[in-house]
Amino acid sequence: MVFYPGGEHLTSWRLPGGRPADYVTFEYYEHFARTAERAGFAALFYADELYVWDRFASGVEHVANVRPEPFGLLGALTRSTERIGLVATVSTTYNEPFHTARQVGSLDFLSSGRAGWNLVTSASDEEARNFGLERNLDHAARYRRGAEFVEVVTGLWDSWDDGAIRPDVASGRYADPAGLHVLGHEGEFFRVRGPLNLPRPPQGRPVLFQAGSSEDGRALAGRYAEAVFVPGSAPLPGAQRLYEDYKQRAVANGRAREHLLVLPALSPVLGETPARALEKLEEIEALTPDRLSLDWLSHHLGVDLSDRPLDERFEFDFTGGSNQVQTVFEGVRKLMDRERFTLRELYRTMLRRRFLPGTPEQVADWMTERFTHGAADGFTLAFSSLPAGLEEFAETVVPLLVARGVLAAELPAATLRENLGLPVPPSRYR
Amino acid sequence: MVFYPGGEHLTSWRLPGGRPADYVTFEYYEHFARTAERAGFAALFYADELYVWDRFASGVEHVANVRPEPFGLLGALTRSTERIGLVATVSTTYNEPFHTARQVGSLDFLSSGRAGWNLVTSASDEEARNFGLERNLDHAARYRRGAEFVEVVTGLWDSWDDGAIRPDVASGRYADPAGLHVLGHEGEFFRVRGPLNLPRPPQGRPVLFQAGSSEDGRALAGRYAEAVFVPGSAPLPGAQRLYEDYKQRAVANGRAREHLLVLPALSPVLGETPARALEKLEEIEALTPDRLSLDWLSHHLGVDLSDRPLDERFEFDFTGGSNQVQTVFEGVRKLMDRERFTLRELYRTMLRRRFLPGTPEQVADWMTERFTHGAADGFTLAFSSLPAGLEEFAETVVPLLVARGVLAAELPAATLRENLGLPVPPSRYR
Repeated sequence: MVFYPGGEHLTSWRLPGGRPADYVTFEYYEHFARTAERAGFAALFYADELYVWDRFASGVEHVANVRPEPFGLLGALTRSTERIGLVATVSTTYNEPFHTARQVGSLDFLSSGRAGWNLVTSASDEEARNFGLERNLDHAARYRRGAEFVEVVTGLWDSWDDGAIRPDVASGRYADPAGLHVLGHEGEFFRVRGPLNLPRPPQGRPVLFQAGSSEDGRALAGRYAEAVFVPGSAPLPGAQRLYEDYKQRAVANGRAREHLLVLPALSPVLGETPARALEKLEEIEALTPDRLSLDWLSHHLGVDLSDRPLDERFEFDFTGGSNQVQTVFEGVRKLMDRERFTLRELYRTMLRRRFLPGTPEQVADWMTERFTHGAADGFTLAFSSLPAGLEEFAETVVPLLVARGVLAAELPAATLRENLGLPVPPSRYR
Repeated sequence: MVFYPGGEHLTSWRLPGGRPADYVTFEYYEHFARTAERAGFAALFYADELYVWDRFASGVEHVANVRPEPFGLLGALTRSTERIGLVATVSTTYNEPFHTARQVGSLDFLSSGRAGWNLVTSASDEEARNFGLERNLDHAARYRRGAEFVEVVTGLWDSWDDGAIRPDVASGRYADPAGLHVLGHEGEFFRVRGPLNLPRPPQGRPVLFQAGSSEDGRALAGRYAEAVFVPGSAPLPGAQRLYEDYKQRAVANGRAREHLLVLPALSPVLGETPARALEKLEEIEALTPDRLSLDWLSHHLGVDLSDRPLDERFEFDFTGGSNQVQTVFEGVRKLMDRERFTLRELYRTMLRRRFLPGTPEQVADWMTERFTHGAADGFTLAFSSLPAGLEEFAETVVPLLVARGVLAAELPAATLRENLGLPVPPSRYR
């Protein structure tokens, strides 16, 4: 399960059952972490960004721009949960790998082997400006840096051999120097000597998640990721092709196909009837002011659409935006190649692609089909509203998935790696 | 109370009651955090460094070099404690202020106003090499960067006015754009636009601790720090002069003298009789191998002493070391000016200065005298062994301090700032 504090959508904080004033209140997160754990989710995945979206006034006025820093929050959640994995988002563009190795490794100790990290490369100039740059690194450089970052972090985790630290009070020997390794990394972006001042984490390596679906993003996933979030909206044949693409990339990198899990994104909007589910989706749409929708599109396309009429068809003749989230830009381009939309239609179509409206049975069917037909190893649930959407899903869809044998009735008390069926990687020095 | 995972001294992990295999085990920290809270300590202060001390083989073999990253650990401790302050060490040389503002600010929300941060500038080349540099920044540059870092972090905390975030579901207004401030900092070391994606912390600003006692360090403290750790070993008149020096620096910066707390360091070694306390101190000394003692001195003096005999008097003719912890170097120089020591005597003298051996009554007398005679606003307790030293102090010295009215019987359920008698700073935009 992945979450932004208020839910999957820009204004989902307005949905019934939301607690929009509580996004820096620990009990808010504790409540739905426990709910997700009880429902049998393998991991709680905390989405994060490093800026306030103030490029447009509408972003400040209508969007929930505040959220706690991941490691303190997930550290605290290690005390409120016992089995669920805790996955922190880390920007490889605006962090130092030595800090990240310690943060994620420490979380693995605090949680007794339940830590994961979600590698992002950061997509907006707003983030760059909080870290000394005027513009974000270009797309290819971000992914080269991301790959090097993974090499450094995983190298640092191997600093101490398992068993090298065996304090012996009598002799005064705390550790065996022969079991300590100096990384000595020198690359394009980083020079990091090491070693890390933390033993090898309980999982060997905390699990690496990733979401890039551009060519660079997929290449990185094939090489390093152990679980990828992929768009979930394609029809089954497309979803199968996407699934197979990631698997083949893992194999091409000399890895077993089952060691890269493909987890399509899914944001269900549940209703007792199909009509009611659609109606709820329309209610979600209606919560977003036109102005905000337009600004969101302007942001992702890298052009200013603010003077364009909302309800006239238009030509898509932009070339910008490729240094934002490339996949969003490409998605819009493809949509507009097929059909000339109005801006309002375009925005609505983009939004709808993220949601799956249906009855609990329909959603369970959709998930079961993908799971059993080579299109998903699991799912990345992102709820339109929190905590209500999660609670509803846990009550109505989860029992159906358990009955169909797609989901275990209870999450085992094991490491995240074990619960995902991933092996413990050996140290690079063994 | 300040702590390194195993206690105040290089080999104190060897002392009776130690748990040297547990330094990445949460329950270890939870146990003594709760003990400190019950004893009425205002804050738990987590010392941290960003390297393994592997310059000498003895450092790897005999020293406990591993410890968790501060924010995950203190985040988890917010769940195990209710009243005690939680202070994280932050290197201003090897961090980005945007991350630090979020980390410390989030800890303040997670703990309902119990967060503090301890500004350090990092003193060793080992740390530099984990962050892309060959050598540490020079001493003056580190402190200039530290000052600028504080300006950026405190500026980011003021990004949102109190009350600017008042989500209104009906109108769709999450925040008032007029209450959001863009920092737009451009300085020698940092360019940070902001705003921060976190509301103003519960304490306005989490409390700023600092320990530098060089001229640069004191200047920084006078300008920004709200509590300083100072060496506790000087006789009373010297301690009073030191106390007054910090107070005057605060006043010279236009601040009230009571808004900079001076907290002398104190590492008691308790015995039922004075003789037994001294004996225990000798036991502590005996735990450190000669080789390690020598290497520790070499490190701090910036010269290689390994070929010098331990038991012959020598001339102190070094000029290096000034880019390490300047105060240690100066302390040795002054000692050697007074008397020509052997290396063994020098090391023992340096070590002894950090400890106060005595009966519980003697230690309580010492503390009471300094507290009532203008030499201390409180103390920074650093125990020779953990958790045993803390437990012993809580059982024997704390009741005496309470009886003398120097310590409250119970820590109030309040913010750290309130418990330290510090005012909430207004936002810079008010």
